[in-house]
Amino acid sequence: MRVRVTLAYDGLRYSGFQRQANTALTIQGEVEAALERIAGQPVGIVGAGRTDAGVHASGQVIAFDIAWRHSMQALRDALNANLPEDIAALDAAEAPAGFHPRYDARSRTYVYRMYTAPVRNPLIRQRAWHVAGELDAEAAQAAAASLVGEHDFTSFGTPPQGENAVRTVYEARWQAGPDGEHAFTITANAFLFHMVRSIVGTLAQVGQGRMTAAEFHAILAACERGLTTVLAPPQGLTLVAVDYGE
Amino acid sequence: MRVRVTLAYDGLRYSGFQRQANTALTIQGEVEAALERIAGQPVGIVGAGRTDAGVHASGQVIAFDIAWRHSMQALRDALNANLPEDIAALDAAEAPAGFHPRYDARSRTYVYRMYTAPVRNPLIRQRAWHVAGELDAEAAQAAAASLVGEHDFTSFGTPPQGENAVRTVYEARWQAGPDGEHAFTITANAFLFHMVRSIVGTLAQVGQGRMTAAEFHAILAACERGLTTVLAPPQGLTLVAVDYGE
Repeated sequence: MRVRVTLAYDGLRYSGFQRQANTALTIQGEVEAALERIAGQPVGIVGAGRTDAGVHASGQVIAFDIAWRHSMQALRDALNANLPEDIAALDAAEAPAGFHPRYDARSRTYVYRMYTAPVRNPLIRQRAWHVAGELDAEAAQAAAASLVGEHDFTSFGTPPQGENAVRTVYEARWQAGPDGEHAFTITANAFLFHMVRSIVGTLAQVGQGRMTAAEFHAILAACERGLTTVLAPPQGLTLVAVDYGE
Repeated sequence: MRVRVTLAYDGLRYSGFQRQANTALTIQGEVEAALERIAGQPVGIVGAGRTDAGVHASGQVIAFDIAWRHSMQALRDALNANLPEDIAALDAAEAPAGFHPRYDARSRTYVYRMYTAPVRNPLIRQRAWHVAGELDAEAAQAAAASLVGEHDFTSFGTPPQGENAVRTVYEARWQAGPDGEHAFTITANAFLFHMVRSIVGTLAQVGQGRMTAAEFHAILAACERGLTTVLAPPQGLTLVAVDYGE
């Protein structure tokens, strides 16, 4: 039986989603270990997005094949009973036999959280980037607007081997909240390695008045890796949703 | 020179605010160690509230005497450079010679955060209590209203040795937010040991339909420790403000 599960996790302790050859702690490794305890045999999973080390998720989607005679809710509960407290299965549902979380996804949405304050905030330090000085949300948003549409995003990230760097961004929205909080939401058909964090780091320079929206656009248009200098830290980033066009 | 500092901290790693005779990690111990490095000699601090193990603060107030020739901002920055990342000095200001954060405080405000969801949320697990089932915020608020005013709170906590249990609650407000989030805000002249967590645990029973507002009020009126059975866990609680009537 093909099963689809939505995962939430705190990425702090992990070397990213994808299992590695070494002994690094990964989300995939923890979920597969839980499933093996439940199924009594190895179960391989595939995920929609390969989140980096330290990156969080509130809506990662995974799928796997498993022999299961009980309800989907019972499977969800069994997973949660076998997962560490920083990973949770939010739901479980039967999926079509060939369902593939990555190839079938129409889009992914990430949110990046920041805050400006004279002093670091210990209560959100693991969920947001502490940016020094003020951020001009309107300036950052004006620059972000140039991301929307189909572009070669070479300047902001690295594609998987054998793929080009053309991606389609459906939405790129920078919003200021209360208490110096800022959030950047971006939806695209797919993302390059480091793409969101590189975009956010560079948009923050625009927000700080160190770069104009025109300069930001010129970096995008140059299609050249190495023009960006700020990679926003991982703890501000969360994979919030994967859309399958349902 | 008497100095007053507002502290924020993530209580997760700590055995509470107050320094202990053993080797337990405490907020007071960490701040005094940072001040000793800065001043070159031992500096004792006093705090407004003795937060329990695992309890957070966004507005704890401390005071200490120190010889300092530079600006208050430089002292704040020196503190932050010497504190672990889960404790921050939000400000520093000169205070009257006799200023005492605990005795001079007119009131303290705590916020307790909860959420209801079928599955735990890894991203807020260290800042909120995961309550099973639904919570009726109106029922909880109706019961909470009986807390306001001067009462003997023996049923909900233990006073320091030699003190009575009479405290004055100025505000007690239960609010439902989005995504099953609930927050309980309480302001009082002072609190007993375990008082907020015991009140929240019992109000949650009202919210879950396991106790009526009248039964809650009867527990308060009984002035008898041992009638409450649910102590809400520490990670949902934050000391948000101390008021000095300025």
